[in-house]
Amino acid sequence: MALLEDQSLLAENTTTVSKNHSVALMPAISEIFEQSHLKPTEIDRVVVAKGPGSYTGLRIGVTTAKALAYSLDKELVGVSSLAVLAAAVHVDHETLLVPVFDARRDNVFAGGYVWDNDQLINALPDQHISFKDLCAQLVGKKVCFIGADLVKFKDELLELMAGQDYSFAPADSAIPRAFNLGLLGASEKPQSVSDFVPKYLRLTQAESQWLEKNPQGKEKHGPYVKKY
Amino acid sequence: MALLEDQSLLAENTTTVSKNHSVALMPAISEIFEQSHLKPTEIDRVVVAKGPGSYTGLRIGVTTAKALAYSLDKELVGVSSLAVLAAAVHVDHETLLVPVFDARRDNVFAGGYVWDNDQLINALPDQHISFKDLCAQLVGKKVCFIGADLVKFKDELLELMAGQDYSFAPADSAIPRAFNLGLLGASEKPQSVSDFVPKYLRLTQAESQWLEKNPQGKEKHGPYVKKY
Repeated sequence: MALLEDQSLLAENTTTVSKNHSVALMPAISEIFEQSHLKPTEIDRVVVAKGPGSYTGLRIGVTTAKALAYSLDKELVGVSSLAVLAAAVHVDHETLLVPVFDARRDNVFAGGYVWDNDQLINALPDQHISFKDLCAQLVGKKVCFIGADLVKFKDELLELMAGQDYSFAPADSAIPRAFNLGLLGASEKPQSVSDFVPKYLRLTQAESQWLEKNPQGKEKHGPYVKKY
Repeated sequence: MALLEDQSLLAENTTTVSKNHSVALMPAISEIFEQSHLKPTEIDRVVVAKGPGSYTGLRIGVTTAKALAYSLDKELVGVSSLAVLAAAVHVDHETLLVPVFDARRDNVFAGGYVWDNDQLINALPDQHISFKDLCAQLVGKKVCFIGADLVKFKDELLELMAGQDYSFAPADSAIPRAFNLGLLGASEKPQSVSDFVPKYLRLTQAESQWLEKNPQGKEKHGPYVKKY
């Protein structure tokens, strides 16, 4: 997480090890306010990564952000988790930035972003897709891959992207930075706190299990499990 | 500060508000180990920004790094504070990266860096110099300025660099990142823990005050105040 004042960083705290967000998140938020000599009431808005990403991580992040925005009566903005990864890599406007998160079973969450002057533009929508199908969409483009999860797809990537014009973002942009999340969210229009939901971009596990047992279910009922 | 495993970030903590390093540094180091489920004894080396920068900040940072390396019996590496700022900006190899820290009284600490493939090369030595003299050294070069302190020199810069080919690094690289410090220090040769000293790049205040009162002193005695 990070605290920003306009375009400047006041404090930032990143961790890639502890996955127990439900335990670690609120104390860390409290700590970063202390570090910055700021009170939660003094902020103007809460910006949260709205997904895609792990179900539980997203639920806890978005729920915490909504609770903060609601109780402090502050603005809430959601930003694509993939856009946050892309925003760290400053390249020419011809390069398609392709942030990638592992989504298990040979699938990834990925999107395509380009810089238009100082604006990051979403050129290829965030999607839940097999790594193979992703690479097929990138043929003929000048691509820069971003993300720590790419090591898992390295062999496949070398094969699928053979002969293509691609590169990898430097090591210091492999992990999403909350500073970039804040920079992206600073200029976005606030969203309704009560209606805000994560962008999972795939079925929940309960939903896909139900559909496995009820193959005609989707046509009959539409999505069975309500998404929170 | 940051904890790295090879080229990957485990945890990073940045703050720009609290300047009381002597109080805040050790608890923050302890905290980042806890976040990462690592013990101080499990690290291989300590990397510290060796300067230039504020006297007190450098003394506390370097003293803490030396104490850790000595007591844990680990390697110690010092990296230029300006190189850390430059390392966040990935540009073509023709661009001279010019990281700048304010040094008060119209002076700055600044250096010049270029990327040679994945290596950051020091092309213009770190120096303590008037902002005017710095700009004179940059004439005819393709320059990218880096650093949050540059706003203080904005009017002067616009005037001195008129007609020159220059740009500013994006907002997310204006503050040095410990992650980049670690990446730079990972491949450096370890230094002697006991002999390691900060690179102040200017006289200490005691030294300059003594020289003001003893204008012939430098020629007669050499530097009067021993630098720690």
